[in-house]
Amino acid sequence: MTTTFPITTLQKRVEAIFRNAGINDVQSAALARVIVAGERDACKSHGVYRIEGILRTVKAGKVRGDALPVLDDAPAHGAIVRVDAAGGFSSAAFELGLPTLVARTRDLGLAALVVNDCTHFSALWPEVEAVTEHGLAALVMCPSYASVAPAGGIRPLLGTNPLAFGWPRPGRTPYVFDFATSVTARGEIELHRRAGKPLPEGWAIDETGAATTDPAAALAGAMLPFGGHKGSAIGTMIELLAGVMIGDLTSPEALEDLGTTTLAPRHGELILAFSPERFAAGRAGNPFDRAETLLLAIIGQGARLPSARRFAARAQSEAEGITLSAAEVALLDRLLKRGLDAVS
Amino acid sequence: MTTTFPITTLQKRVEAIFRNAGINDVQSAALARVIVAGERDACKSHGVYRIEGILRTVKAGKVRGDALPVLDDAPAHGAIVRVDAAGGFSSAAFELGLPTLVARTRDLGLAALVVNDCTHFSALWPEVEAVTEHGLAALVMCPSYASVAPAGGIRPLLGTNPLAFGWPRPGRTPYVFDFATSVTARGEIELHRRAGKPLPEGWAIDETGAATTDPAAALAGAMLPFGGHKGSAIGTMIELLAGVMIGDLTSPEALEDLGTTTLAPRHGELILAFSPERFAAGRAGNPFDRAETLLLAIIGQGARLPSARRFAARAQSEAEGITLSAAEVALLDRLLKRGLDAVS
Repeated sequence: MTTTFPITTLQKRVEAIFRNAGINDVQSAALARVIVAGERDACKSHGVYRIEGILRTVKAGKVRGDALPVLDDAPAHGAIVRVDAAGGFSSAAFELGLPTLVARTRDLGLAALVVNDCTHFSALWPEVEAVTEHGLAALVMCPSYASVAPAGGIRPLLGTNPLAFGWPRPGRTPYVFDFATSVTARGEIELHRRAGKPLPEGWAIDETGAATTDPAAALAGAMLPFGGHKGSAIGTMIELLAGVMIGDLTSPEALEDLGTTTLAPRHGELILAFSPERFAAGRAGNPFDRAETLLLAIIGQGARLPSARRFAARAQSEAEGITLSAAEVALLDRLLKRGLDAVS
Repeated sequence: MTTTFPITTLQKRVEAIFRNAGINDVQSAALARVIVAGERDACKSHGVYRIEGILRTVKAGKVRGDALPVLDDAPAHGAIVRVDAAGGFSSAAFELGLPTLVARTRDLGLAALVVNDCTHFSALWPEVEAVTEHGLAALVMCPSYASVAPAGGIRPLLGTNPLAFGWPRPGRTPYVFDFATSVTARGEIELHRRAGKPLPEGWAIDETGAATTDPAAALAGAMLPFGGHKGSAIGTMIELLAGVMIGDLTSPEALEDLGTTTLAPRHGELILAFSPERFAAGRAGNPFDRAETLLLAIIGQGARLPSARRFAARAQSEAEGITLSAAEVALLDRLLKRGLDAVS
């Protein structure tokens, strides 16, 4: 048996769970928006499944549910806009900083939003898409916690460090990609372990640094970066720009701070925004029209644009509502009723 | 028999070749610096071997050897600094824009240098390193010409689109990566063809879009992006940011403009610069010290940092000079003597 919710109804229900667990209004609303966006886009790994992890991280005292993010939009910072998440989740902090990021980008052509001292649990595409809604392009990155060995290395050091990019397409869903710089997600390895299936080659190494297809050995060892030394280099860049440069934790530091891989990690986030209109000013052609020529040529080859599946699911959810399984509905009921007591 | 040149001697000799071929002083000096840097770093594919291609592109009328780049540093452009290469090579244009890029980045925290209407033939690491010498981080990208199929596609559309990044390491050589977003370089496929060797799987597709290990079929077909759909997405991002957004040619447009894959393509280039000091201001820890902790942890695992081999070769060249083969010396002599008549 399934239940279908209008999007706004599910938003209110998820928001209530967070408020009931003692998380303040501004954070509850922002968290619920991200969770519901995951369900809306059939991105189950970032949907209601994530609520328990959020509550566990609150209960463990690793994130502050009562934190109020603080915006620093001093013009003296130039193209850098900062939000101090004050130990709370990244979502509300991002929402607070977005209008200033947009204004600064329109003013200067490009600008950066730095979110510091936040706990991050979501995909990066919600941030990317929020920027593209203002007609701007976005490049977003953050560390995670040490679980990936650098190419040629033998131990976890880098995070799965997601990289996401968005380009606005007026009148259409944006061009958006969002992926981990590891070959795969840690959850995928866990799923193989539970299913008793060997891993594909090239996903992981064991504790000695040797290649392995054994999921248990991989979980005790390290994941590998995507694309060999190239993905490893990009993962390292993300540590440098979105960890070290913004004065926040790198993935090894985040793991040390957290002490476990079962909670959401604390670190910072870097959002770069670009104004195509400012960059293209004075040059021939409209950048949005020219982008369509390129993107339609990709589709014309029979290739799919990234996020296409997600946008198709979104269109369906917006028309028909979001359908949850009986187990998911029971989970929401239990979490609403028991709050932090529902999680260990 | 080999000849060893002090770096400055080789610089003068290469510069003279360009001037003798009718290229103006400012471009000749900048071109020679990039070529000699390639030889100095034992990066032979971007060394004296490239001179003939440069001269061929001049002779074909596809690049202007007499172009004088023009800087547009109007403060009204905010964080965007522009150089119009006026149809010349990118090197002199980049050199002209660098001081303003550095000043603007120090002022605003981050800034972009856009080079328009240039012909690009070199690696991107010279640009990246030039920015890091000022204590700034850099992210650089440009299109090339259509030779790579998007993931899931069947025909060349994207370029090999290099992506390069640099992080300054005070007192040391910087952290620098610079790679194509294709699995391999077109030149590598050509080398396999000449050697009669099959390609590794996953490098290319044939004209029908089917996977191939036949170098000739690959050259008639398309190369594949590195890392599957992730590399394809990054390659597409480079077309959008460093082609469409900056109002310059995408890789399919560059190929159409050039009409051949044997000359250097015309397009633009995007250089993003970041001030770690500005981004880290007010946060705990020195970003340069913290970066060392991360980078030394990579080395401590037995992994190598990107560009390590290049920097080792550089140290040797700086101490002992640059050694060229008799054939290379003969090539330089011939090019100096015959100018554009030396190339077809």
